[in-house]
Amino acid sequence: MKDRIVLAYSGGLDASVAIPRLSERLGAEVVAVAVDVGRGGASLDAVRERALGCGAVEAEVVDAREEFASEYCFPAVAANSLGMDRPLASALLGPLIAEHLAAAATRHGATAVGHGWAGRGRDRVRFEAGLAALAPDLEIVAPVPETGWTRDKAVAFAEERGLPIDAAAESPCPADRDPRGRAAEHGPREDRWNGSFEDLFSRTGNPAEDLDPDEVAVTFDGGRPVALDGETKTPRELVDDLDRRAGAQGVGRTGAASDRPAGLQGREAGESPAGIALTTAHMALESVTLEREQARFKRTVDRRWSEAVYDGLWFSPLKNSLEAFIDETQGRVTGEVRLTLHRGRIAVTGRRSEEDLYDSAFAACGGDHSFDRPDARAFAGR
Amino acid sequence: MKDRIVLAYSGGLDASVAIPRLSERLGAEVVAVAVDVGRGGASLDAVRERALGCGAVEAEVVDAREEFASEYCFPAVAANSLGMDRPLASALLGPLIAEHLAAAATRHGATAVGHGWAGRGRDRVRFEAGLAALAPDLEIVAPVPETGWTRDKAVAFAEERGLPIDAAAESPCPADRDPRGRAAEHGPREDRWNGSFEDLFSRTGNPAEDLDPDEVAVTFDGGRPVALDGETKTPRELVDDLDRRAGAQGVGRTGAASDRPAGLQGREAGESPAGIALTTAHMALESVTLEREQARFKRTVDRRWSEAVYDGLWFSPLKNSLEAFIDETQGRVTGEVRLTLHRGRIAVTGRRSEEDLYDSAFAACGGDHSFDRPDARAFAGR
Amino acid sequence: MKDRIVLAYSGGLDASVAIPRLSERLGAEVVAVAVDVGRGGASLDAVRERALGCGAVEAEVVDAREEFASEYCFPAVAANSLGMDRPLASALLGPLIAEHLAAAATRHGATAVGHGWAGRGRDRVRFEAGLAALAPDLEIVAPVPETGWTRDKAVAFAEERGLPIDAAAESPCPADRDPRGRAAEHGPREDRWNGSFEDLFSRTGNPAEDLDPDEVAVTFDGGRPVALDGETKTPRELVDDLDRRAGAQGVGRTGAASDRPAGLQGREAGESPAGIALTTAHMALESVTLEREQARFKRTVDRRWSEAVYDGLWFSPLKNSLEAFIDETQGRVTGEVRLTLHRGRIAVTGRRSEEDLYDSAFAACGGDHSFDRPDARAFAGR
Amino acid sequence: MKDRIVLAYSGGLDASVAIPRLSERLGAEVVAVAVDVGRGGASLDAVRERALGCGAVEAEVVDAREEFASEYCFPAVAANSLGMDRPLASALLGPLIAEHLAAAATRHGATAVGHGWAGRGRDRVRFEAGLAALAPDLEIVAPVPETGWTRDKAVAFAEERGLPIDAAAESPCPADRDPRGRAAEHGPREDRWNGSFEDLFSRTGNPAEDLDPDEVAVTFDGGRPVALDGETKTPRELVDDLDRRAGAQGVGRTGAASDRPAGLQGREAGESPAGIALTTAHMALESVTLEREQARFKRTVDRRWSEAVYDGLWFSPLKNSLEAFIDETQGRVTGEVRLTLHRGRIAVTGRRSEEDLYDSAFAACGGDHSFDRPDARAFAGR
Repeated sequence: MKDRIVLAYSGGLDASVAIPRLSERLGAEVVAVAVDVGRGGASLDAVRERALGCGAVEAEVVDAREEFASEYCFPAVAANSLGMDRPLASALLGPLIAEHLAAAATRHGATAVGHGWAGRGRDRVRFEAGLAALAPDLEIVAPVPETGWTRDKAVAFAEERGLPIDAAAESPCPADRDPRGRAAEHGPREDRWNGSFEDLFSRTGNPAEDLDPDEVAVTFDGGRPVALDGETKTPRELVDDLDRRAGAQGVGRTGAASDRPAGLQGREAGESPAGIALTTAHMALESVTLEREQARFKRTVDRRWSEAVYDGLWFSPLKNSLEAFIDETQGRVTGEVRLTLHRGRIAVTGRRSEEDLYDSAFAACGGDHSFDRPDARAFAGR
Repeated sequence: MKDRIVLAYSGGLDASVAIPRLSERLGAEVVAVAVDVGRGGASLDAVRERALGCGAVEAEVVDAREEFASEYCFPAVAANSLGMDRPLASALLGPLIAEHLAAAATRHGATAVGHGWAGRGRDRVRFEAGLAALAPDLEIVAPVPETGWTRDKAVAFAEERGLPIDAAAESPCPADRDPRGRAAEHGPREDRWNGSFEDLFSRTGNPAEDLDPDEVAVTFDGGRPVALDGETKTPRELVDDLDRRAGAQGVGRTGAASDRPAGLQGREAGESPAGIALTTAHMALESVTLEREQARFKRTVDRRWSEAVYDGLWFSPLKNSLEAFIDETQGRVTGEVRLTLHRGRIAVTGRRSEEDLYDSAFAACGGDHSFDRPDARAFAGR
Repeated sequence: MKDRIVLAYSGGLDASVAIPRLSERLGAEVVAVAVDVGRGGASLDAVRERALGCGAVEAEVVDAREEFASEYCFPAVAANSLGMDRPLASALLGPLIAEHLAAAATRHGATAVGHGWAGRGRDRVRFEAGLAALAPDLEIVAPVPETGWTRDKAVAFAEERGLPIDAAAESPCPADRDPRGRAAEHGPREDRWNGSFEDLFSRTGNPAEDLDPDEVAVTFDGGRPVALDGETKTPRELVDDLDRRAGAQGVGRTGAASDRPAGLQGREAGESPAGIALTTAHMALESVTLEREQARFKRTVDRRWSEAVYDGLWFSPLKNSLEAFIDETQGRVTGEVRLTLHRGRIAVTGRRSEEDLYDSAFAACGGDHSFDRPDARAFAGR
Repeated sequence: MKDRIVLAYSGGLDASVAIPRLSERLGAEVVAVAVDVGRGGASLDAVRERALGCGAVEAEVVDAREEFASEYCFPAVAANSLGMDRPLASALLGPLIAEHLAAAATRHGATAVGHGWAGRGRDRVRFEAGLAALAPDLEIVAPVPETGWTRDKAVAFAEERGLPIDAAAESPCPADRDPRGRAAEHGPREDRWNGSFEDLFSRTGNPAEDLDPDEVAVTFDGGRPVALDGETKTPRELVDDLDRRAGAQGVGRTGAASDRPAGLQGREAGESPAGIALTTAHMALESVTLEREQARFKRTVDRRWSEAVYDGLWFSPLKNSLEAFIDETQGRVTGEVRLTLHRGRIAVTGRRSEEDLYDSAFAACGGDHSFDRPDARAFAGR
């Protein structure tokens, strides 16, 4: 029986072309595995069909939508790591896909994992680092030599073979939908000065459009978002709703990526409406519930968490211990934050928490007009 | 001859009442010294008149407007410390006033320095820490016992003495104009949920108003802002113009102070239009000019700089050495950043720099589609 | 019925004199509470007698020996915080005593806590910070005004009253036995150059003496020492035995305190034989069991833990979250370390652990001659 | 004319064998360049002869002894980075050799740089990183495929070709003399428990030997060592003398490397007598001359400096800015420290400095018996 390869499949051009190329190069059967994180795009049936049409012996779509929100996005919110100058949610996709491809390899008895990323982009690095951590014995095969194919060459190959691909199609593949991935194709440095951004955005509306403000109250329980406007939701529902509402107001764009590789691209079009909204609300709640020295050190921990995830260390001892610190602090991060979303602007217009330090502050300061946050001594009892 | 006290004078109620109270309590002559940082308010002549009318033997207004922008605000921009969750510019006023009161004490042969801050607010702490550092021999006298007067009691005293004060008046006193100082009077915790903020703002317009977008290009030279829209300006001119333009668009408000004491007040109304605009632009420029590991550690240094300044350590060995690190990094932070200011929203819509790492990135990566910022090795030569 | 005060009692001069002075000044009954951390000194009965002889209405000695080793020293070892340039074990005594005095206050229905520390030494600060955290409602009374009594004045007062004190006596009071406390009396700066240290040490022998080497194997389980030379011991037994063996070899002295206040004294005589030996062994074991990036960040966490404890934040949210990080890392710090103790020298001469990264290293590096510690990817699976 | 390669030549086996192998494989002329850092070994003439005997067209020995001490070791002392759990001085050799090979390549018109390191050891990584930073256009050629030759195979090749090598000989090659390099050959993990270390040491005497104590006073000026026992010396003289004196007492060994790769070897034999002695003295002087918060943050900077150097980032923007911080702090690190070196033990037995904070401490604390280091406010004036 032939060897089997599980392929991280997006339905996109590179991944589709990879199916015949890998099976021919390695004389192996290709099982296409698409991981659905709920970003829409082509219908999942279409994706499955396309994979089979390209020669996959099997094709499956894994529903990771709740898991993505709950196990990947929410920890990033607790680490305040989806804000303006942090990696966007797309940085979380590599390890998620790696996790499911490793599981699929076992399920299908595959000895290797393939993917369609050309070049050495960060998403590929994170995916491969995740696999190395979870399944060090699996071989990782890229469809193309490092030197890579141009998009044209891939299109030509697809047409010559009559592959059912649609180069232009939106796809559910996270890597393809990584705003940075897209932005990366927008060329030379000059564009960073002259280029218009509007055409790069797909999940956020134009902030210049005329809309009435939208107010949304986010409820946190132990640092995790649990409700919108008082209505309990599953993680996926909550992220989707907020993505929609913040996106509609043009909230969640970032053109000022700081230590993200996007910082080096021609033009950037970072989009993370729910991510930025939840992080803004979370930081506002921490500011009234965490003791100052703890809050200060948490910034150092948060920052290291972001760097580690950015570097592909999602599955690592470092990240585990950073999260132990973060989790210990989140018990008191319980309460409600009101955000005003309006034409690209996000403002915190209300917060309330049983854990609010406000009263303690006065207790600790003899009731004078101290504006200072009470220091550690005021909380040790808690 | 009688002892002399120099009084940090704001023209406000507490400071005005302090003149007769201090001179009576200590049997000393009071010299009123107002430090003008260019925030408008009552005319400087009016301030001088009021001080004399309250019994000061002398009254002077020190023009610190260029110094405030150049020596206080710009270093904070280089440290990325005027952003959304950092202390606002008002945190820089304590040490500036301390510096000038220490000088005035020498000029007037005073043996003590007085001020009008009641309570133990952070502004007072920074002012007193600055004095202790610069002139440890000067006695510091507060007009009132720690237990403080209520505002009503002060007003009554002023009326009884017929002091020419106007409790409602705007004043040039930075402390009085510290948004946190004002916000602090807005009472109980509930207000943090229900209160409207609009009435608390004085330097930013209502973001909900209908306006056309404003685009402004900020030029940095070695990390310092030097021009707007290509026109060279003095630090003060640059800060004032940008304060006006960003403020007009409702940009520069913060209701989500993080480790600022404001986080504990009934309602916050942080305003720092130029501060937030310059920091946003500066971070965007650093993101394309600083090598990654250097940029990462600079975040730790920036954060510590903010904490030190917040804690009143403006004049300290720690801050001096943190700034040596920061200054060493800023040589390459030269270029131009375009900001779009629109109805409360600030977006980076363009940047260009001779120091842009973009090309090096490709050189370092063999021209493949690497989205990654080139690592340290790519720059050592520079 | 009269008010009651619980007094942190050491049997030393200051604490003994404090009994009559406090009861007279406050017209209250004094209950003397000594906390025994197992440092020997005067017999506990003698201490009890002395307290009653000085006028205490009750006197009790609390046995905190196991707790001190287990709940105070071992967490410090896990944080690598008892090493050469870190606070010595005596820094842990303030919070321990505070904990027991707070409990005693409840037990005896006391409304205040007294102590014998004059001045503003760090030990006093830690004690008072601990009380403020655990029992904010208890009043803290120092026996003397800040300006303090000289030792002579205290002796005179004791003789005049016929108090049964012996100024020279050793005592079980940690504060009195804090080497820094003692060293602090050794005067002017010049002594730091010329003074001989030998007379300052009481727990370490003279390293110049001729002795055969002593080899001791310390077994750690999850970062906690559990056995010496393969023999299981209680925390107290283990610390006492190692204190004796390392001390006999003159190991555990420090004359190079770095950020400890002792750094400012005329002469320092830091002693912590078991503390330094356990920390040396613990660091050696971590170096072969923790992944590199995790080990690196742990140094930052360890350092902050030391600073927080030094600053008196033993009972604080910050320390709780730092320990969550540390605890998460300690699971793999299991194994055995052999130390050679010889005439003031301590050397790690052997280690073994099931968690040793050595083999993984080769696995991760394709078996080449890499000397490098394997990076995070090699462990994520664990 | 044939291409030219400059070869980092040590006189050792691998480097000697590399000469014919590289010239044959690449059809190029090999210029052997040995960098003398003053660690003795074979005579420099012998090294030159051997290179020519192995077929080098030219051979030269660069005297980098003063530079190594002054520009590499002393900055590491200022960063407190040669201590017990930090990389030893050998970590500094890679960049130094890279610097001189890059210069030699220009001098000899070479297009490539060769070296004799097999495997992927850290020394090789640092050397190659340094070259990439200083001369990105130079090709780097290893004599052997990554899979490497065994030592036996190399010896056989040498004998077959009649190369004048002496596998056993000491050599001036830093890489060969890197204790870690040597230790790395000492095999399996068990040895870390059972192996004796004595045979691994070459620069330190046996601490168990009977010797009288040696006292040495080190004078620092602005953080740099300038004299021993009051006698001014050049950096090289000072390091050599101290290496000899500390080494004679068996001081400077480390068997407890923490985040060094050695942590993974069968047995470690780190030796850095002068490095550990100077770092111990330097830390002791910093402890009485640096303000506390500055000293605390410097630990974070020191640590990052060590990590960066360990990682091969000697020539990097990060290191440059870390050193700007360090240099700013060193101005006050001026004074004299007395060390007692005795049978493996190093103790600080005296220090004096005009910058001693001791008096300021009292000034800052109202003269009470505060043991606390005065905080920042006490120094700002300086």
